[in-house]
Amino acid sequence: MIRFGVIGAGRIGKVHAATIAANPKAKLVYVADSFKASAEALAAQTSAEVADAEDVINSPNVDAILIATPTPSHADLIEAAARAGKAILCEKPVSLSVERINACLDVVEKNKSTLMIGFNRRFDPNFASVEARLRRGDVGDIEIVTITSRDPTPPPADYVKSSGGLFRDMMIHDFDMARFLMGEEFVVVNALGSSLVDKAIGAEGDVDTAAVQMQTASGRIAVITNSRRATYGYDQRIEVHGAGGMLAARNIHATSVELSNANGVSGDPVQYFFLERYAQAYANEINAFIDAIVSGNRSPKPGGLDGLQAQKLAEAATVSWQTGRPVQVA
Amino acid sequence: MIRFGVIGAGRIGKVHAATIAANPKAKLVYVADSFKASAEALAAQTSAEVADAEDVINSPNVDAILIATPTPSHADLIEAAARAGKAILCEKPVSLSVERINACLDVVEKNKSTLMIGFNRRFDPNFASVEARLRRGDVGDIEIVTITSRDPTPPPADYVKSSGGLFRDMMIHDFDMARFLMGEEFVVVNALGSSLVDKAIGAEGDVDTAAVQMQTASGRIAVITNSRRATYGYDQRIEVHGAGGMLAARNIHATSVELSNANGVSGDPVQYFFLERYAQAYANEINAFIDAIVSGNRSPKPGGLDGLQAQKLAEAATVSWQTGRPVQVA
Amino acid sequence: MIRFGVIGAGRIGKVHAATIAANPKAKLVYVADSFKASAEALAAQTSAEVADAEDVINSPNVDAILIATPTPSHADLIEAAARAGKAILCEKPVSLSVERINACLDVVEKNKSTLMIGFNRRFDPNFASVEARLRRGDVGDIEIVTITSRDPTPPPADYVKSSGGLFRDMMIHDFDMARFLMGEEFVVVNALGSSLVDKAIGAEGDVDTAAVQMQTASGRIAVITNSRRATYGYDQRIEVHGAGGMLAARNIHATSVELSNANGVSGDPVQYFFLERYAQAYANEINAFIDAIVSGNRSPKPGGLDGLQAQKLAEAATVSWQTGRPVQVA
Amino acid sequence: MIRFGVIGAGRIGKVHAATIAANPKAKLVYVADSFKASAEALAAQTSAEVADAEDVINSPNVDAILIATPTPSHADLIEAAARAGKAILCEKPVSLSVERINACLDVVEKNKSTLMIGFNRRFDPNFASVEARLRRGDVGDIEIVTITSRDPTPPPADYVKSSGGLFRDMMIHDFDMARFLMGEEFVVVNALGSSLVDKAIGAEGDVDTAAVQMQTASGRIAVITNSRRATYGYDQRIEVHGAGGMLAARNIHATSVELSNANGVSGDPVQYFFLERYAQAYANEINAFIDAIVSGNRSPKPGGLDGLQAQKLAEAATVSWQTGRPVQVA
Repeated sequence: MIRFGVIGAGRIGKVHAATIAANPKAKLVYVADSFKASAEALAAQTSAEVADAEDVINSPNVDAILIATPTPSHADLIEAAARAGKAILCEKPVSLSVERINACLDVVEKNKSTLMIGFNRRFDPNFASVEARLRRGDVGDIEIVTITSRDPTPPPADYVKSSGGLFRDMMIHDFDMARFLMGEEFVVVNALGSSLVDKAIGAEGDVDTAAVQMQTASGRIAVITNSRRATYGYDQRIEVHGAGGMLAARNIHATSVELSNANGVSGDPVQYFFLERYAQAYANEINAFIDAIVSGNRSPKPGGLDGLQAQKLAEAATVSWQTGRPVQVA
Repeated sequence: MIRFGVIGAGRIGKVHAATIAANPKAKLVYVADSFKASAEALAAQTSAEVADAEDVINSPNVDAILIATPTPSHADLIEAAARAGKAILCEKPVSLSVERINACLDVVEKNKSTLMIGFNRRFDPNFASVEARLRRGDVGDIEIVTITSRDPTPPPADYVKSSGGLFRDMMIHDFDMARFLMGEEFVVVNALGSSLVDKAIGAEGDVDTAAVQMQTASGRIAVITNSRRATYGYDQRIEVHGAGGMLAARNIHATSVELSNANGVSGDPVQYFFLERYAQAYANEINAFIDAIVSGNRSPKPGGLDGLQAQKLAEAATVSWQTGRPVQVA
Repeated sequence: MIRFGVIGAGRIGKVHAATIAANPKAKLVYVADSFKASAEALAAQTSAEVADAEDVINSPNVDAILIATPTPSHADLIEAAARAGKAILCEKPVSLSVERINACLDVVEKNKSTLMIGFNRRFDPNFASVEARLRRGDVGDIEIVTITSRDPTPPPADYVKSSGGLFRDMMIHDFDMARFLMGEEFVVVNALGSSLVDKAIGAEGDVDTAAVQMQTASGRIAVITNSRRATYGYDQRIEVHGAGGMLAARNIHATSVELSNANGVSGDPVQYFFLERYAQAYANEINAFIDAIVSGNRSPKPGGLDGLQAQKLAEAATVSWQTGRPVQVA
Repeated sequence: MIRFGVIGAGRIGKVHAATIAANPKAKLVYVADSFKASAEALAAQTSAEVADAEDVINSPNVDAILIATPTPSHADLIEAAARAGKAILCEKPVSLSVERINACLDVVEKNKSTLMIGFNRRFDPNFASVEARLRRGDVGDIEIVTITSRDPTPPPADYVKSSGGLFRDMMIHDFDMARFLMGEEFVVVNALGSSLVDKAIGAEGDVDTAAVQMQTASGRIAVITNSRRATYGYDQRIEVHGAGGMLAARNIHATSVELSNANGVSGDPVQYFFLERYAQAYANEINAFIDAIVSGNRSPKPGGLDGLQAQKLAEAATVSWQTGRPVQVA
């Protein structure tokens, strides 16, 4: 029985707490949140106790820590939990700074900690199926990975200010997905960006519409496009073209219902809300983390290096967009 | 070079005349129509000559006769052409009377004539592909054949009066399709019918909405539904369920374009007009007839017996609907 | 807080118990099962207590009874629970005998009990969406309802023996769905049936392949086809054609992934297992029952009369198949 | 009646000759080809006469010239036809050299000639529908144009040698399509390329896999990916994301038939051959040219400037790929 402490009782923390509570191999022991009322509400729902983050991390009754706090605290909490000998699942990103990530991963490594990073999309059944079939060779050698990722509505300009920018905040998921699918590191990144959706985003020095193309050492290509707004829902598609064919994961619609009339044939919009679209992914993610601990796997994927690599690509894309030139990635 | 005489210069006659003119193995020699101006217009377009039907049939310069006149003249023209030793392609049906068909087919047989009936849908590339795959065994033993057939708009009540009724006029195509796909004769027919689309049709003693279920001696089942009106276009679908799976032919849409927005995902309506939907089928049909003659095949399919069997099923369905009881078919 | 007693700790009982346990408006108090170990296992998982069915029904600590036992005990349990003043959700069918259902519903009525029948498919989000849009008028007057329902694999012949036959055991769901969608009672039923899937089923005097067509007093038509085996999964589709268009609910596939290669484009099979296909429907069903009780709605749908009407149609279809003639329904 | 001379009796010349012959507003008078037998065969089929290209161009019996010869002769023939006062439809590209195109367009302008360039894809009913709907405002302001274009099989390395390279030979169509859809010129081009399909292509100094991203002055983005090989057919898709939604044109499959079995649901491959995929587009193209002449429109689209702009983008992409840097386009 893996005993969990959840730090951060916001939207993601709640989702994960419910999954932990329902998993027979795990038990939710403590909930911490700097906003006490949130911690108490979640603890009440899941029969857990409220405690301070520090106490949770250092409790002898806790085996694993879920970190679902705001980004700035991630690296510190990871280090503390690593020093306390806990297994750690931390929401992405470890940090917006590549340097800080490196320092943090050093601590993790020194303590031989188990660290998994919450790139939830790897656990979406559709994308996971594509990846498994790629590894099985269903389309042979991979040549082009295409990722389309569009949010339903743009964030407030206020959020944008502290987000690190679209490439670090939003496309980070796609950088991880591109690496996950390609199975080879990218060596060059080209980025274009524009503020077409909301001028307030542009005024904050960020973009809301972007395209990135990347190439691996062996010449394989990935293309990512992002938009902060899609009227038709949360657009999340991947497509992988290889020597033997193409694998694609389509969007998920609210129902399978179609209306045919004089205007044509019409189906439901794409699922709108990320927690709905990725509900299964979030559950599969934490269950995979629990299975890794139970089975003694000290390096569940995606791990700290995956967090680092995605951040490096986000960094490179940001610089490429700012300078209008391709950026090499080590 | 097969020399053709076309009798009937209406919509279907024109379509077939164009295909004949474009087929390098055939030549359109004469066009006949009781309405002279129609014959002249078509002849001018296709570099053919105008002649009376009788002269066309008896001309030594004609090898094959296409009959595309109104139904009441079909059987007489077939007999005349058979006696004149011509190969014959006649639009469905041979006659609305099973007795008249039998008499006509006797003449055809006595004269050892080549007779093909214009069940155009057998030549639709989609339906033809399903049939070929059924024969190849793609779904194993056939168990259930489902045919959905809906016209875009109801005919005028005037037309209904002389049409023989929905089962003989419209569902006749589906009876042929059911036989074509099933590959086994039906022995019992159950029909339901209603006038839901246009009360004027009901007032003429006909139906505009109908369902038929049929069974073969070995227990296989076919289900047909018809409507005289579908707001979304000309609905033409088939589905065959067998021991090894299901084969289905979907509707054909005007374009492959999809619009996604806050209302959902919407595509074009189904193709609306039968001449557009079955353009390829009509061309393939007459080219198959030409190929049969060229290759010496005296029994191209669908032949006179196919016309007869479909008519018997239409007759049985009409009686079943009128009496509210199942009808056995010999 | 609605306090529940669950009678029957089999597959469906377990599914419902988990939903009850997760619903903040309800509490699972007792579990009963004639097989004690099953009751104990389920009680342990849900922090409920084990009790005899009779004690559960009569406990003052219980507001609502979920009956998920084998069919033969349904009517007796409903009557007992009705007399004890409990709200009742009973798995379909109340009984295989229309007379027995009538007697049972009399008791329910006399005691003014709340009774809901477990036609789970009404709560499937896809089918529920179709029904809601029909009621909203999205396709205008309904003309043809088409229901395709195929199980992935046939039941053992043993099961068939005591099942009441395909029309009562399997098509019962489709009879309810046809009524649910049509919104008007059927007055005539025509059935065809065959044993094509498994001869052992035919040897038991039952069919494994069937088609039914039904008509309402106003002439609207429903067509249902059933098969006990579909190699491609659990085929569950509905289609409603009306004066203003067509609404259809398509099958649900395991993932949205498509592979394109020289063989064509291929997607995942249809979801295979009924508990997976209807997981959301089962949850929505019991939550709707709970909401009805909480809100004081004494006649949640589908109610006892819905159970009765579906059974009458199943009865009529059975007789129609046996006699080869249409059967009128009162 | 527009009298046509066709110069070049190869695959495309034949397709266009057949459409001209079938158009009642046009007449095919002469066919020229440096390989006499080809000209004779085509002339025989279309009741035209054979003549030398020079004679065709200068004949007083010719109003319009179709140029369907190999690329190196295009510019010379355009100039000759322009000087002879003929309307001209020339297959893309005018020339592989931007300078040569400029010189040629000067001659066209001086002679006030009508010149249309054969970017056939603009006339595909699917893509034309997308463009029409974009102009009508169906998705509001355009933000991202995505074009996926993959040939079924790579050309022989020999062909590659004289083709001008993938960007000029293959992606040229996509550059035109991107301009056609976007309705605003691109100012910067980023290209990536690899030889992943056939090393012989790489050995010729060309690529067979490529991605390009481009941006307009107002920040709109286009992304193009090309491959010289797709096992599943001729992959030709476009997608346009705007402030109000997304318009997409999907691939065209051989039939609408789907097989469902234990392996899943599978449909036909995408249409394989460009002449089949774009049959309607070729016909619509020349008919649009004829209509332009008939109606006195001296500037049918796509015109010479469209040919020039696409070539400039191809040039820029080639340089970007070679230098690994973005290229500005004037």
